[in-house]
Order: sequence, then C-alpha cells, then structure tokens
Amino acid sequence: MTKKQEKTAKEEAERLIPKAEDFSEWYNQLVQKAKLADYAPISGCMIIRPYGFAIWEKIQHWFDQKIKATGVTNAYFPLFIPERFLHKESEHFEGFMPEVAWVEKKDDAEERYALRPTSETIMYDAYAKWIRSWRDLPLRINQWCNIVRWEVKATRLFLRTREFLWQEGHTAHATEEECEKEVALRANQYKELVETQMAIPVIMGKKSKSETFAGADYTIALEAFMPDGRGLQMATSHKLGQHFAKVFDIKFTDKEGKEKLVWQTSWGLSTRTIGAVVMVHGDDKGLVLPPNIAPIQAVIIPIYDNDTKKKVLEESAKLRKKLEAKFSVYLDDRDSYSPGWKFNEWEMQGVPIRIEIGPKDIKNRQVVLVRRDIGEKKPVKESEVEHALAKALDLMQENLYRKAKEFLSANIKDARTFEELEKLIHNKKMVRAHWCGYSECEEKTKEKTTATIRCIEGETKEGKCVVCGKPAKTMVYFAKAY
Amino acid sequence: MTKKQEKTAKEEAERLIPKAEDFSEWYNQLVQKAKLADYAPISGCMIIRPYGFAIWEKIQHWFDQKIKATGVTNAYFPLFIPERFLHKESEHFEGFMPEVAWVEKKDDAEERYALRPTSETIMYDAYAKWIRSWRDLPLRINQWCNIVRWEVKATRLFLRTREFLWQEGHTAHATEEECEKEVALRANQYKELVETQMAIPVIMGKKSKSETFAGADYTIALEAFMPDGRGLQMATSHKLGQHFAKVFDIKFTDKEGKEKLVWQTSWGLSTRTIGAVVMVHGDDKGLVLPPNIAPIQAVIIPIYDNDTKKKVLEESAKLRKKLEAKFSVYLDDRDSYSPGWKFNEWEMQGVPIRIEIGPKDIKNRQVVLVRRDIGEKKPVKESEVEHALAKALDLMQENLYRKAKEFLSANIKDARTFEELEKLIHNKKMVRAHWCGYSECEEKTKEKTTATIRCIEGETKEGKCVVCGKPAKTMVYFAKAY
Repeated sequence: MTKKQEKTAKEEAERLIPKAEDFSEWYNQLVQKAKLADYAPISGCMIIRPYGFAIWEKIQHWFDQKIKATGVTNAYFPLFIPERFLHKESEHFEGFMPEVAWVEKKDDAEERYALRPTSETIMYDAYAKWIRSWRDLPLRINQWCNIVRWEVKATRLFLRTREFLWQEGHTAHATEEECEKEVALRANQYKELVETQMAIPVIMGKKSKSETFAGADYTIALEAFMPDGRGLQMATSHKLGQHFAKVFDIKFTDKEGKEKLVWQTSWGLSTRTIGAVVMVHGDDKGLVLPPNIAPIQAVIIPIYDNDTKKKVLEESAKLRKKLEAKFSVYLDDRDSYSPGWKFNEWEMQGVPIRIEIGPKDIKNRQVVLVRRDIGEKKPVKESEVEHALAKALDLMQENLYRKAKEFLSANIKDARTFEELEKLIHNKKMVRAHWCGYSECEEKTKEKTTATIRCIEGETKEGKCVVCGKPAKTMVYFAKAY
Repeated sequence: MTKKQEKTAKEEAERLIPKAEDFSEWYNQLVQKAKLADYAPISGCMIIRPYGFAIWEKIQHWFDQKIKATGVTNAYFPLFIPERFLHKESEHFEGFMPEVAWVEKKDDAEERYALRPTSETIMYDAYAKWIRSWRDLPLRINQWCNIVRWEVKATRLFLRTREFLWQEGHTAHATEEECEKEVALRANQYKELVETQMAIPVIMGKKSKSETFAGADYTIALEAFMPDGRGLQMATSHKLGQHFAKVFDIKFTDKEGKEKLVWQTSWGLSTRTIGAVVMVHGDDKGLVLPPNIAPIQAVIIPIYDNDTKKKVLEESAKLRKKLEAKFSVYLDDRDSYSPGWKFNEWEMQGVPIRIEIGPKDIKNRQVVLVRRDIGEKKPVKESEVEHALAKALDLMQENLYRKAKEFLSANIKDARTFEELEKLIHNKKMVRAHWCGYSECEEKTKEKTTATIRCIEGETKEGKCVVCGKPAKTMVYFAKAY
C-alpha cells in the first residue's frame, strides 16, 4: 500500500462522527464501518454481516446452553400463520395487526397467511394437539428464527427493521405457580445474559398494562438505558396465563383425571440487543466489545521491517498457536496493510485486546497488550502472556459493566412533581416516580414528554402520583424509548 | 398406568404399518410417531418437533464446524428479494419463478418482494458493494435459514414442503481454478457429512444440463438411493462461474490493478436429508438413528418393583452421571410407564442403545446393552460400561453404513438397451448406462419411465447411448427421484 492509499484509508477510518456530536449518526456510521450490518436493498431491512452475526452466535451459544440446561428444547414452526389464528385472541390480534405482512394468496389457498410477527398462535395450535395428560407437562419449546413486523418508522440497523432474528420460548405448565416461576426464571436468565455477557446493567420489572404484551397477564421487561437518554427493552418474559389456552383449547388431564387448562409463558430476546451493545460501549474510535461476546478476543499485530519480517511472523504464529486453545485470537499477518492501519481497523471493530509483537519485544521475550476500552499498553513477559491476557479480558469485561452501571445510576433521577419529571426527561434522564396506576396519567406523560413507563419498580403504599397527585400504587421508571 | 391403558398405548405404538407393505405410508406414520415432525395447519408446511430439530442441530453442528475450519463465516441476509433481482439472471429467474411466493404489496412499497427461494441474488447485490480488491477475496459466507418454495405436489414431511430449513454457502474467488476447487471442497465435505454422520452412501457427480442449478455452469450432486427405488438428492455444490458476477457487476481490482469479474460458487444442504435418514435406516419398529447424529445415544431404563425401586433408581442415576460426560444419555425414570412401554417408545424414536438395569444386574455388577439396529442384548460389567457403550455405538454406526452401502451396490444395475433400462427402472433399480449427452434422450427416458439422470459418473469414449444408440459421451445414473 502506498503512503497515499494509507492516508486515504486512515481518513476513511477517522471519518466516524464523534459520539457526543451526533449520537444517531455516530451509531449509523459505526454499525456499517465496523462491518456489523448493512442496509438491504429492501426498504426497512438489514443484512447482518459476518462480524455482526458472529456476535449473535456468541449470544445464541450462551443462552441456548442455559435454557437447555433448564428443560427447554428447540424446534421449528412455520413462518406462515393462518389469518384466522391471529383473530382468535382479540388483544393479541389488535396488538400485532398493524405490522403484519401478508403472503399474496395463491390460487389453491383457502385462506390468507401472515408472516409471523411472533409465534404464539401457530405454536399453541400444535400444543393443543400434543398435550393430553399431566405427563406431557411442563412443555418447554424454544425457536431461533426470523420475525417480520412491517414497521413504518425510519429504519435503524439492529434496532428497528422489518425483519429481525430472535429466540422465542413458549412453555405450558400444570399450575399457575409453576407458570409464574418460569416467567421469573427466564427473566433472570436474560438478566444474567445481558449483565454478565453484554456488560449492560438493566432495570427489571413488570410493564404497565398499556405496554404489556398483547394477550398476556403481565410482562416482565429488562430495560437498559442508552447514552442518548432513551430506554431500550432488551428482553421480555410474559405470563400468558390461560388466555391462549382458552382460545386454542389447550387442556390436560391431571393425576385425578380432571380436565384442566394449561398455564403458559412466552419470552424473547432479539438481535436488537446487539444495537444496545454498540450504543452503550462504543466510542469515537468505533465499537468496543465486551470480551465475553467478542468473536475475536485478541488480535495479534506483528510489527516488522524487511530484515525482521521472517522472525516476527514466526514468533507471531507461535503466539497464536499458544493462545488459540483458550482464546479467540486472530493473527493479522496481512502484508498489504501497515500496523497503524491495522490498529485503526481493529479498534473500529472493537476487538478487546491488541497484542503487538516486534523485534524489540522478541529480544526482550515479551509482547505488548493494549486494552481497547482504556487504551492502556502493558508489556508482558512471553511466559506470562496467557495469564495476562485472561486477566486483561476479565478486567475489561468488569470495567465495561462498571462504567455502564455508573452511567445508569447517575442518570436515574427521582421526580416528585410533573414539572420535575418534564425537566428531567428533557435533560435525557430516566425518571423514578410514584404512579397512581391509571392509564390516563401514563398517556398524559407520553403526550407531554414522549416518555413512557419503562417498567414498574414495585408496589408502594406511600407517596402521590407524579402526574395527578392522587395516592400512588407503584413506583415506576419513565423514559423515552427506542 | 393401568394394564388397559398400557395395552392401548402398546397398540398405538404397534400400529406402524410394515415398511415392506406400504413404504410411503410407513414413512408418514413413522415421522409423526417418532415425533420428528408434524403437519402444520398451513397447507404444504411442516412443524419440526424438538426431536427432529435436535437431529438437525447435530447436522448443523458438524457441518458448521467443518466449514468454519475452512474459511467460511456465517451471516444473515433478508428473507425478501426484490422482484427485479430475480429477473436479472434469466435462467435463474425461469428456474425459480413458478415456485415463488410473494408478499402482498404494502402502500409504501415501490416494488414486489419474493420470499427467498434461494439467496444468490440478494447476496450478490451486497457482494458487489463489499468486494473491491483482490484483498477482499476469497469471500466465503454461509447462512442457515428458512427457504420458501411454493410446491404444488403433495406434501411429504421433510421431503417436500413449502418452507424448509437449509444452509446455503456463497463464495467469490479471484480465479476459475480456485472457484472449481471450492465446488469440489464443499461437495467432499457434504459427502463426509452424509456418509460418516448420516451413514448414507452416495453417488457423487455432475448433473446433466437439464438438472443443473438455474444459473450455474455445472452442479455437483450427491445422490442417495432410497428403499423404494428412488434417488434422493442430499446436497448440491454449484459452479456459478461468472454468470451472476456479470449481471450483478461483482468486480475486483487484481494485484496488477486490472479490473476483473469474480468467480462464484454456491452450495446447500437442507432438512430433507433427515427424511433420507428415516427412509434408509428405519424399520418396522420405527426410527433407527445413526449414533453420530442421534440426539440421545443411549437411554437407561431402570427395571424394578416396589421393593427394589429405590436401589435401582439410585444405581441408574449413578450410571447416567458416569456416562453423560462422554455420551448423550437419557435416564427414563418416569414412574408412570412400564419398562415394556418405554422399550417400544424408545425403539420408535430410534435411540441407538438401550441400557437395562435391574436388581439382578446390580447384584452381578452389570448392565445390559441392547442394540437398536440388530436387537442384540449384551450383559456388560459395570466397570466396562463406558468402553462397551463407545464400542457398541461405533459398531452400530458402521453397521448402518455397511447395510446401506450393500443395498445401494445391489441396486445399481447396468443397462445396455432401452428395454433393459425400462425393466430395471420398473423393478426399482438405479440404472447405470451410456448416454450420448443430448437432452432429447434424457426427455424420452423421463416420458417413458419417469426416471431422470441423477448424475454423471464420468466421461467415456466407448459404448453407445442406451436411448438412441449413437456414440456415448458419458456414463450416467438413471433413477426415479424424490
């Protein structure tokens, strides 16, 4: 590569707009420059590129093992949902109808088919066939699949697209108690995934009625807070109760021979969480990936001239070999790019640790580890590199979480009056306040501030509603939302 | 469970029609009774149930590791394909158009969208954007996804459905030589997958022009032979050459600065292969799974009465613990079913090894291993159970392959005249014969016998076409096909 080409490449990399200057544009540029995703030639759709998909695979792997260890099996249900199914549960129908895409009716088709906006109806029609006795319960099925919701709002890669990927778990139980335990179990597994793997702290609580999943008794949501002052729902776990059991006639015979309706849950997490990872941890140099979900945890960059090339590449290959048993490492031995160019590129892609190895390092039997999050450079003895790398990854994972947690804590503010609430929302805060429980107050807040109740912290017997001043029933979190 | 209930359950299990009596009906019953898949409430669609999906996960896991170790990364492209894309490559368009399902046009849509029947076009539009220089090559991307082809023929679970799951690999290369190497590499990986994991021997060769993938230079197919005398295509690897590169304008600048078109391949394997596993290995008792793709490799069945229950269950749990580090084992300790009932159920589900453990076995410090394929019962010392189980699984894997290979060899017959060919096809054989290379002879064969050329064995300079008698160019395999 010539000096001129290199300069152009560097400029290209540097063209990322600062996060503080235009957050939304920074996000759009970063997602594309880090090769996470790209706009598709279909309005509203995205292409998840290999690097972005590899992050999704990390998330899938962690969660899939977790749910399988707690009684869930995977399956695959059709993309197509008969229209009559969507009509069966009226709340569910009204909730999803505006966003449903339909298949053009074929000559031989008896009815209209929707592309699944979620799979409760198609799955529960089968559950009604499969469940006969208490022996068939609990039934816990998950699927990893694509989902279609024809959004009309502007497209945002990962965050708002007409097709996205997710997992949806659907369980049926003999008792309400088991059902509620399941809802909590999955919510807690999501919390662990989001907090320990994605390094994003969340507030977890029930949704208000207006934000509850269409057809559920209640929804537990995991809410994260983005640097631009907006809440982002990371995952939800729904207690469906017996709504769907009634309309799909899902009954079982209990041990005493009595026929009963099952109790159900559903729960999901989608590729939009990757968008949250980008927003929470990314910086002006590009993506910053938590080591636990990084497709490449460490990149080895050999630094050499013509005289030292052979030796440095040999040592680099040895180092890769030594590390790859325990870590995801990549040796960037491309001869056509300079080390500086590579530094920029891997910083843009958010690789947690850069390992530099040059002739002097080899002489001193050392390498240099560079942390992506804080830029710290640390010479490490060759004999200690595995230990040092493991430690650096752990520290970075912790640091990202700690920073995000501090940001969240610093941005949750209590409001006692509606004026305070308005001001805090305007100042991009998440607002903790008393609420009377009436949807009128929720709606008024939305109208005046565009903020909604992200979730309920808990019940309270004291305090007054921040909107109407009447006695409060719950303490809730208000924020603008993605 | 009462005696009467047990009898009913046993009858239910036994109701599988013999394989030799009505092969097609046997297949339909088996797929449902073994809980592999079920008909969906949408005409032409299937539900892949957890047990069937677990087999797909085994196949995915093996192949995904294999392709990742040879330079492939996964990604995800949209389900929707703009109509104009499908029109770009005329052969491709004509090949898929009859089976395309379309999305109902929304008010704001500028064009019509197809549901992907395959993803060449949507992927290569992106490749044209991403590929700039020789440094970007080879580009190798795979995706695991759902595919929609609106079949009009009768539905067959796994074998012919309007939606199915597959992987599709799409690569771009700098030279024709690399491109052809890639086509062969993937075909060989499929062969290894199908033969060593699914225990199904295949014939591998190029397709005749009429059966070549729409838009490819040539297609290499892996053809298996089913017990009902029909060929089943297990996977294909296509040399696309520069057809798509031309129409999607996928160019790169080579090391000398010259602009060139890329060379491309695509290759796929779908859930229909599970149908082949069922047909090839299944018997009158149900499914028989090759150990390498069995979700449960061994099932432990405790045999006890009230006096011995505690001890037997304790020892069974110990045994599971001992085995589960190395094998996929399941302990069927359900108290509500008798051992006999369980034997039937697990035989239906094709679990390779049953491990019986009763009071006498415990006294003798042994267990009994029972092979699903040959029914052999073998007492094994407790201390040798891991070794014995590993060996039994290996032997069963080998035995299934050997049997299928013998069946294939015994059913390939040479034909020198068209009359011989007709007779052999009528007698459910796969016919090896000379062919002149002209499509007229292929069409005539199809009209008269419904058999098609499954693949080409190789070129030949001797012999006469089995149809027209003119000098032959190739030796080919004819068979009826799924």
